[in-house]
Amino acid sequence: MPDLIVKTPKAPYYAVIFTSVRTSNDNFYALMSAEMEAEVIKQHGFLGFESARNEIGITVSYWKDLASIRRWRENAKHQIAQQNGREIWYKEYCVRICKVERDYTG
Amino acid sequence: MPDLIVKTPKAPYYAVIFTSVRTSNDNFYALMSAEMEAEVIKQHGFLGFESARNEIGITVSYWKDLASIRRWRENAKHQIAQQNGREIWYKEYCVRICKVERDYTG
Repeated sequence: MPDLIVKTPKAPYYAVIFTSVRTSNDNFYALMSAEMEAEVIKQHGFLGFESARNEIGITVSYWKDLASIRRWRENAKHQIAQQNGREIWYKEYCVRICKVERDYTG
Repeated sequence: MPDLIVKTPKAPYYAVIFTSVRTSNDNFYALMSAEMEAEVIKQHGFLGFESARNEIGITVSYWKDLASIRRWRENAKHQIAQQNGREIWYKEYCVRICKVERDYTG
């Protein structure tokens, strides 16, 4: 099992905070999630992700740079998932692109 | 009930991503969480927070600027919570201070 908390490199690096509220419409959501996970780990510049869901879902993915984030956003399989997300799975969502300026662990 | 997804202002603003893995030691954890929530919403520059926990817990708090984040880190009640967190509640954690450069919602 991978580490739950991602071992990111020395800052600066980038984070994409994706927060969402699900609809009750499942429609292969788990399958899409698994496929996106298999796809994202192959992306250049991808550093890892952390995810949890209760009433709200929060997935934070970490990236080397903004160019890697842009490429992933434009990835063909991911584009289909994003469209299904907007139309079927998510009642509401927010994507925030962030520069991680510093961090500390304990 | 407040919005689950925080209505943040136009970027840039700041995010603190706190990811943690809990110990099995409860010791008033829920009480501390409720107290910290009551305290943080009073802080100058605080914009809101989003939180979810399964195997990993992710809490993202949003702030107007770095000075507000520093003041909250140094807040006396929060200092006690942080110490208990390190010693009792968290097996592992990571705090990442981020500048939100852009965002979009759907």
